Amino acid sequence: MNELRQNIITRDWVVIAKGRSNRPDEFASARKPQAPQPSYVAQCPFCEGNETETANETFAIRDAQGWRVRVVPNKFPALVPVGEPKRKLSGIFRSMPAVGVQEVVIEHPRHDMSLALMPVAHVADVIRAYRQRYETLRQDERIEAIIIFKNHGEAAGTSLAHPHSQLAATPIVPSQFRLRVEEAIRYFDDTGECVFCRTMAEELAASERVVEENEHFVAFIPYAALSPFHMWIFPKRHASSFDEITNAEIEHLASVLKGVLARLHVALGNPDFNYIIRSIPTGEKRTDYFHWYLSIVPRIARTAGFELGSGMFINPSVPEENAALLRSVDLSTIPQA
Amino acid sequence: MNELRQNIITRDWVVIAKGRSNRPDEFASARKPQAPQPSYVAQCPFCEGNETETANETFAIRDAQGWRVRVVPNKFPALVPVGEPKRKLSGIFRSMPAVGVQEVVIEHPRHDMSLALMPVAHVADVIRAYRQRYETLRQDERIEAIIIFKNHGEAAGTSLAHPHSQLAATPIVPSQFRLRVEEAIRYFDDTGECVFCRTMAEELAASERVVEENEHFVAFIPYAALSPFHMWIFPKRHASSFDEITNAEIEHLASVLKGVLARLHVALGNPDFNYIIRSIPTGEKRTDYFHWYLSIVPRIARTAGFELGSGMFINPSVPEENAALLRSVDLSTIPQA
Repeated sequence: MNELRQNIITRDWVVIAKGRSNRPDEFASARKPQAPQPSYVAQCPFCEGNETETANETFAIRDAQGWRVRVVPNKFPALVPVGEPKRKLSGIFRSMPAVGVQEVVIEHPRHDMSLALMPVAHVADVIRAYRQRYETLRQDERIEAIIIFKNHGEAAGTSLAHPHSQLAATPIVPSQFRLRVEEAIRYFDDTGECVFCRTMAEELAASERVVEENEHFVAFIPYAALSPFHMWIFPKRHASSFDEITNAEIEHLASVLKGVLARLHVALGNPDFNYIIRSIPTGEKRTDYFHWYLSIVPRIARTAGFELGSGMFINPSVPEENAALLRSVDLSTIPQA
Repeated sequence: MNELRQNIITRDWVVIAKGRSNRPDEFASARKPQAPQPSYVAQCPFCEGNETETANETFAIRDAQGWRVRVVPNKFPALVPVGEPKRKLSGIFRSMPAVGVQEVVIEHPRHDMSLALMPVAHVADVIRAYRQRYETLRQDERIEAIIIFKNHGEAAGTSLAHPHSQLAATPIVPSQFRLRVEEAIRYFDDTGECVFCRTMAEELAASERVVEENEHFVAFIPYAALSPFHMWIFPKRHASSFDEITNAEIEHLASVLKGVLARLHVALGNPDFNYIIRSIPTGEKRTDYFHWYLSIVPRIARTAGFELGSGMFINPSVPEENAALLRSVDLSTIPQA
């Protein structure tokens, strides 16, 4: 019989549906092979040599060969850093100007690269760019939250193949942030512990869902993973805000992130995925109850009316089996560093 | 400049991004024409003549020509009506058996039909089947919530083209339900009003986002619609639970539902969509604060890392313009009844 499992961070229940991966269409999108990319595309605004196509670089990391990572404004921003985030109420209808910032982190000069294939040192440069922009954007007092995310592949919502990730700085605290923080506070008030630290301790003790681990980070498939190969990377040191990450921790996060993405790349054939860095709203910084983390969501199962209508998910796979598969991947075909 | 608008029911903020519909890929999936379907498919378990392929019909509506609507168990259920929904706690890991019910409502004998094209009287039969199964399933004391939903098209999560919708009865109250109810209670305690009744009154007064209206129902694009052509259908009479719907109201809901789906069909070329009937948890029935409704979500914009990471949405269209477009649709090519 199937099992319902509760996500202790969000209190959502998920159906772990063992038999359903037999449905022929279930992992369809995971199996669509992606076309191999050339290393340079003349029309790609992110390729090395086409830098004039992207306006006003806000940050870059360079070496003797040229740039390694560049950060530029989003060319089609929905949020712009103009004006004041003043609420307006008309009857029950509340609005405000869409003040904010959207930036693109171009992860590599080459079009055909991906975090799964880059040397760890290059992944560390990408994370360094995240931290630098996070630290800068949080200085703007209009900003209440910063979301760092990556859309890899069409099913994950991108049509640009060149490896890139994004930052969005919003003038409100999204209600999803508030709910997670409220749950974390409730857990802390009940137990005196950070719910994320506790989860990590129990996942490490159970070990069967752990995929990668080093001195400063652990990657695991959560007990109540919402979807196949959904993964969390937690910093071992309790910290609420992503920009608390140290230089040493950046190297370790790069190693774990590259490791799990390389495992996904091999095991599922370069699947489409999103990842998100979840951090405390920028108005706060150090708290006992909230813990920043990175969440990876491979887009290989479809969400439909059941998920939209309930917020519950049906995961047609078993977290322990997903983790075992990823641990068993032979990474010898993937460049290491 | 773009605008942020707040959804008063969920307290989520959405970015209404006027300029973004110029992005070439934005409405891509809306423009993929669907292949025309034959009226009968030998391999389709839902087609008239293939009834032996679906086990143990739980309900049907028949006339002299045969069945009009059938309800059958889901062939690949994640939830099954066996055992007791007892929680088990191991460390922080909470689980329970996946007790529940999943059923399929086959909406029409013909493979090539859809709610947009059926006579209103047939749509009313589909809604009658929903009510009958809702009333029956709620008798089971293990059930805490019932979700009625429809997945139309591949982007909405179905691979079966035959017109059908689904019921899922869960042994827990999904946290999304709890949050909506909590917000509704807070609004009621502050104002003495149902937030849904208030929203409907203001949407009717503003009128610019209303798409269809009759004596008992109104369909409108919400002020803070999460995505293009996202639509709500509210019953005008305050009622918390879907199964409170009367026979007369069923006819009126059928007319409004068919009307808006026909408008979407013409305006967007038979887009993929989900709809969901949102109702109070089954443990409650009549409340002053909660109001059931039907939510339609065309799947024509992609959700990506920003939405996953924040719960905020970027709507690359303007609700008032979407509503005006739907009102202007010439329905003369669609069969009426």
